[in-house]
Amino acid sequence: MYITSDFDSGNIEVINTDSSPVELAIRQDNNSDFYQWFHFRLEGKVGESYPLRIVNAGKAAYPEGWENYRVCASYDRQNWFRIGAEYDGNTLDFTVELDRPAIYLAYFAPFSWERHLDLLAWAQLDDRVQLQTLGKTLDGRDMSLLTVGDAEAAKHRVWMIARQHPGETMAEWFVEGFLETLLDDANPSAQSLLRDTVFYIVPNMNPDGSVRGHLRTNAAGANLNREWQNPSMERSPEVYLVREKMLEIGGDIFLDIHGDEALPFNFVAACEGIPGYDERHAKLEETFKRAFVAASPDFQTERGYDLDKPGEANMTVGTNWCGHQFRTLALTLEMPFKDNDNLPDPIEGWSPARCQQLARDIFLPIREALKAL
Amino acid sequence: MYITSDFDSGNIEVINTDSSPVELAIRQDNNSDFYQWFHFRLEGKVGESYPLRIVNAGKAAYPEGWENYRVCASYDRQNWFRIGAEYDGNTLDFTVELDRPAIYLAYFAPFSWERHLDLLAWAQLDDRVQLQTLGKTLDGRDMSLLTVGDAEAAKHRVWMIARQHPGETMAEWFVEGFLETLLDDANPSAQSLLRDTVFYIVPNMNPDGSVRGHLRTNAAGANLNREWQNPSMERSPEVYLVREKMLEIGGDIFLDIHGDEALPFNFVAACEGIPGYDERHAKLEETFKRAFVAASPDFQTERGYDLDKPGEANMTVGTNWCGHQFRTLALTLEMPFKDNDNLPDPIEGWSPARCQQLARDIFLPIREALKAL
Amino acid sequence: MYITSDFDSGNIEVINTDSSPVELAIRQDNNSDFYQWFHFRLEGKVGESYPLRIVNAGKAAYPEGWENYRVCASYDRQNWFRIGAEYDGNTLDFTVELDRPAIYLAYFAPFSWERHLDLLAWAQLDDRVQLQTLGKTLDGRDMSLLTVGDAEAAKHRVWMIARQHPGETMAEWFVEGFLETLLDDANPSAQSLLRDTVFYIVPNMNPDGSVRGHLRTNAAGANLNREWQNPSMERSPEVYLVREKMLEIGGDIFLDIHGDEALPFNFVAACEGIPGYDERHAKLEETFKRAFVAASPDFQTERGYDLDKPGEANMTVGTNWCGHQFRTLALTLEMPFKDNDNLPDPIEGWSPARCQQLARDIFLPIREALKAL
Amino acid sequence: MYITSDFDSGNIEVINTDSSPVELAIRQDNNSDFYQWFHFRLEGKVGESYPLRIVNAGKAAYPEGWENYRVCASYDRQNWFRIGAEYDGNTLDFTVELDRPAIYLAYFAPFSWERHLDLLAWAQLDDRVQLQTLGKTLDGRDMSLLTVGDAEAAKHRVWMIARQHPGETMAEWFVEGFLETLLDDANPSAQSLLRDTVFYIVPNMNPDGSVRGHLRTNAAGANLNREWQNPSMERSPEVYLVREKMLEIGGDIFLDIHGDEALPFNFVAACEGIPGYDERHAKLEETFKRAFVAASPDFQTERGYDLDKPGEANMTVGTNWCGHQFRTLALTLEMPFKDNDNLPDPIEGWSPARCQQLARDIFLPIREALKAL
Ligand SMILES: [Ca+2]
Ligand SMILES: [Ca+2]
Ligand SMILES: [Ca+2]
Ligand SMILES: [Ca+2]
Repeated sequence: MYITSDFDSGNIEVINTDSSPVELAIRQDNNSDFYQWFHFRLEGKVGESYPLRIVNAGKAAYPEGWENYRVCASYDRQNWFRIGAEYDGNTLDFTVELDRPAIYLAYFAPFSWERHLDLLAWAQLDDRVQLQTLGKTLDGRDMSLLTVGDAEAAKHRVWMIARQHPGETMAEWFVEGFLETLLDDANPSAQSLLRDTVFYIVPNMNPDGSVRGHLRTNAAGANLNREWQNPSMERSPEVYLVREKMLEIGGDIFLDIHGDEALPFNFVAACEGIPGYDERHAKLEETFKRAFVAASPDFQTERGYDLDKPGEANMTVGTNWCGHQFRTLALTLEMPFKDNDNLPDPIEGWSPARCQQLARDIFLPIREALKAL
Repeated sequence: MYITSDFDSGNIEVINTDSSPVELAIRQDNNSDFYQWFHFRLEGKVGESYPLRIVNAGKAAYPEGWENYRVCASYDRQNWFRIGAEYDGNTLDFTVELDRPAIYLAYFAPFSWERHLDLLAWAQLDDRVQLQTLGKTLDGRDMSLLTVGDAEAAKHRVWMIARQHPGETMAEWFVEGFLETLLDDANPSAQSLLRDTVFYIVPNMNPDGSVRGHLRTNAAGANLNREWQNPSMERSPEVYLVREKMLEIGGDIFLDIHGDEALPFNFVAACEGIPGYDERHAKLEETFKRAFVAASPDFQTERGYDLDKPGEANMTVGTNWCGHQFRTLALTLEMPFKDNDNLPDPIEGWSPARCQQLARDIFLPIREALKAL
Repeated sequence: MYITSDFDSGNIEVINTDSSPVELAIRQDNNSDFYQWFHFRLEGKVGESYPLRIVNAGKAAYPEGWENYRVCASYDRQNWFRIGAEYDGNTLDFTVELDRPAIYLAYFAPFSWERHLDLLAWAQLDDRVQLQTLGKTLDGRDMSLLTVGDAEAAKHRVWMIARQHPGETMAEWFVEGFLETLLDDANPSAQSLLRDTVFYIVPNMNPDGSVRGHLRTNAAGANLNREWQNPSMERSPEVYLVREKMLEIGGDIFLDIHGDEALPFNFVAACEGIPGYDERHAKLEETFKRAFVAASPDFQTERGYDLDKPGEANMTVGTNWCGHQFRTLALTLEMPFKDNDNLPDPIEGWSPARCQQLARDIFLPIREALKAL
Repeated sequence: MYITSDFDSGNIEVINTDSSPVELAIRQDNNSDFYQWFHFRLEGKVGESYPLRIVNAGKAAYPEGWENYRVCASYDRQNWFRIGAEYDGNTLDFTVELDRPAIYLAYFAPFSWERHLDLLAWAQLDDRVQLQTLGKTLDGRDMSLLTVGDAEAAKHRVWMIARQHPGETMAEWFVEGFLETLLDDANPSAQSLLRDTVFYIVPNMNPDGSVRGHLRTNAAGANLNREWQNPSMERSPEVYLVREKMLEIGGDIFLDIHGDEALPFNFVAACEGIPGYDERHAKLEETFKRAFVAASPDFQTERGYDLDKPGEANMTVGTNWCGHQFRTLALTLEMPFKDNDNLPDPIEGWSPARCQQLARDIFLPIREALKAL
């Protein structure tokens, strides 16, 4: 048996291969205590079973993320299925039965930097798309912004940013689906939106964390979603660069795409705790959520985060900062690492294809919210 | 130059090839005065222009269908674009500039019997699908019914029939899109619907007319959508067989998919003129329409047919018969041959891809209507 | 259980469905005693077994074709697998175990008229291709000729005709593969050939027999491969039209693509029995065969037809007529209905994909033969 | 204008963007003087022209590689076309006319590490394939070996290694095409070979150099094709690990896949200069070359490297070492960076698709050489 993670977003440490189960540990994000993302390949003998144990699961960033969690697995790196796991409060145990010589295992289906570059390259083939590099990350990667639509003529501006937390790959699967729909000439929701709306899309807010196999932080160990009040080129250039662009352009809707480790549901978090939160905010949120519930049985409003008390929002969080700065609708969309328990899929759980479908279904709430501006 | 229509749904008569423009006529449906569907291949010299005239356009079933109509054209039989045409009240004139040796021209993108069989074969690969032959048409083709979902357990039953008028190929493109969505495991609208709803789908109500290149009738010249009160195996077995099955099974929603020659919009016609039309009918219609408008900018309710006066509905029409017989929601969906003028596409006009997208967007109104039952 | 064949190339008669096995018969070609091609759909209950018997198998055109024959089957009309069968000298017995509600069964994977039209439409997208209709069949279908390459500049002319015997669908699968290779810009064999050679290709010599579900004849019951000495527009327009074009253009290599019912091998038949057969003929045949053996383990020269005695060739056969008329290489390529026993495929037997691969591998013998001219 | 190379195999240094042309330089391989590979993205304004100059072209590893060289370019990272360039003995000048906001430019179409992992993952889905990690490179990447066929039963063993020189990406495109053909069930050459032959394939001999954007060396600056006599885990683990496996297993044919910067032809180099070179070597080489010339007009034997004098071979070269060690056929296959001048492609030059086709055409020479063993 051989275990390796020497590739894009790879993350595992092999503690002991002589033991049964084999003992593994997840590596911490660089300069950070956070960890939960893993991604590795196991090679072995076809037909054999390999019991594996992540020994440091209990100390991960979100231990409740392991409850009822099932591991993502793939033989071909295209199709990802789930493998059942046991969590006892300390370790995560699961067993791989090898059908082919090598299997990939990950916290969620990975979205590589190469696929990111392919997505940008594909999108910019469309006349309506501009591609712009805002600047560089600490590791030297590009912060890319896609502008879709006619910025001169547009009445509305919608921002979508994804993957501030790099291990939340569902966020970039979502953006891929969103772009495919937005650029689909046969989709009337997209076509009618593009008549008067321009979209500013950052498919990956955290390139370095993504490639390094981090859960939550950038190369410097910064949790970018706590950097919106005072970002700097030294510690959080990713936020700094995008935030400057936002300040330059402004916006009417801000969507920040995330994944949640613990809750097996799709939901949004709003900015009810910011200073100056008002009826307009509330109405836009309500319009958006009601339309999203109608559009997609994968979205719901029963389960989610506790509401911030008035005035007690953490203003370093992107959504709060945007909602406050631009006095408009700002939402964090959370998708599950596990599954949508209202509509569970026993084989794949929450999956790339479902992220992409949710992105198709977000067009209705966006349209309704824009009407309600 | 050579013109031929010796294939599935081919329809043209060459009157005079020595004239300029070349004179063509559309063949009447068998045993009928109806005609408007055409479909033929023109072969010529690459780089040359071929002016064509349909000399009997003015006497076609829906002369207003030619106003602002643009001809569907394809070199590869996969991608269909539009060619501008002139209608003077008598003839339809258009000019083909040949980029390749042969071009197909049609009233709308054809949907062949082979593609129909491929669609049935593909759909039945899914465990949740049953395929049943109800009986035979006058030319000996099969009337096929797809049942999707668990008929035993289902709470609701939705019927969808398409292409009673065989020249309205958009109806079967729509069904293809509907089935792809319904069987998509990653689509939550489909998955949640299939929990308690079973779908009865007849992708092609008029196989003989389809293959023969008819506009409106079956092999005997019967307009099937005027046969619902007294269909017979002799004159209208297509309706007879499906209607018997409906009577056996019943249903909660009935959708009859059509195309309209004249109006450049998508809309529904309901059964407001039937005896016993009541508040429930009205509420379901309203719910459906409102949700459809929300779901798709390609759907609207401003433009459509004049309403029947109370009690004056033509009860031989499928939708009226179903609405009356089952005292429930029954709608005719009409798509344009031309374009959706609210969201026009200069290259393709209304197209197969847009039919399929409209079918994806009909899931929301179906779900809302079922909730309102 | 329900059996139907109301589609392109359908052929079966249901004799008795109450018996076990169900009794079926193959319909004769129109105006002819020939029969062996069958193609039908069986609908039944998933999970059940359906024993079937073709009661008139023993009187078919090539009874030895049933020995070790396995029936072609498909659920989706795309992927064809084999079902074992028993032949006792009179009847062919086989049992279908239904995995899905409907299964297609055929003598060989069908190649429909719609696919034929798609092939022509696709091929003519290429600048180097001309599409020409030579005239009409008795049922009114087009006889289409594809010309590939620069007819003005070319030094060599190669003719390829296929499916004189319409039930030999492998011939058109072969042509499809040949055209895909010939038009592949990355294929050096094709690119170098097209520098000095022009190809004249008739993908389907017998459209009417193909659609009617015939084994060997056209609509009038004519075996086209016995019509080459005196074809007529009344009885064999298919041959008449192509032969006239051959006489107009001439040619250096003539390839007639067929299938053989009995022999489980790929082989060629030449024109050693024609008057005037000479060393040049023999050398070209030898060159071609040796190169084909080298290029493809699916081709061999051990097994095949008995050689004609000198001067005793049947001059009504296309290959003999061409070889004599043009004093050059003329070959009939025979592919198996069964399998290539030198390299058997237990699941698919001889298959469309293998026909297409054989067509890729025929480029080497064509190039070698042209060099030897 | 913005230029970036922060991705897999990226290589460029921006010297001066204020000048016209913009001045660029290629970075040297780590710990090495070699350089010639470049790969970067240029972002600018659609419709504008961007003159570029590689100022250190004249000092690159193979200056004659720039003569008649055309730069590879792609907007979507899938389709690569060529842009004309001028070389004056010192600098390489070319002008990019931007059709879309960003364009990728490279010495040859890149083959990324992600694609490498996809290739391994895809190949191992086949039952006949084993995937094995031999060990790690200096940067910690895996050296992967694919074994195709039944190692126990096989009579012959064929080795294929690729991309010792990491900038020669055509070598891995070739391997991808080879594997697709080898695992194609409908390909009789592959199927017959796999009856008695096992293939040992190393798709990428130099992972670190590939990802680092090197031309010729590994992470330590070692030219791996000069390491075969005394490789070490410290300096050349890539060769060490593969060579040990070769010594363990042995082999009958050794193919080392390369690209050549200067010569616009495909050719092989053999091991005529090794001690003990004999008639058997010569016969096998001759058989292989003659069959390859027959199989592919993209292969030729007129142009190539000068022959080594008897006994003067550089034994540190892989092919020489293998030919000597195993006393059998060992060949270096060289494909052009430029084009095959015998069959030039004005748009793409030598391309990934042509590499893959050449790999399909190498089956004939392999089969012939194995017969001649
Ligand atoms: Ca998050
Ligand atoms: Ca209608
Ligand atoms: Ca035959
Ligand atoms: Ca080299």
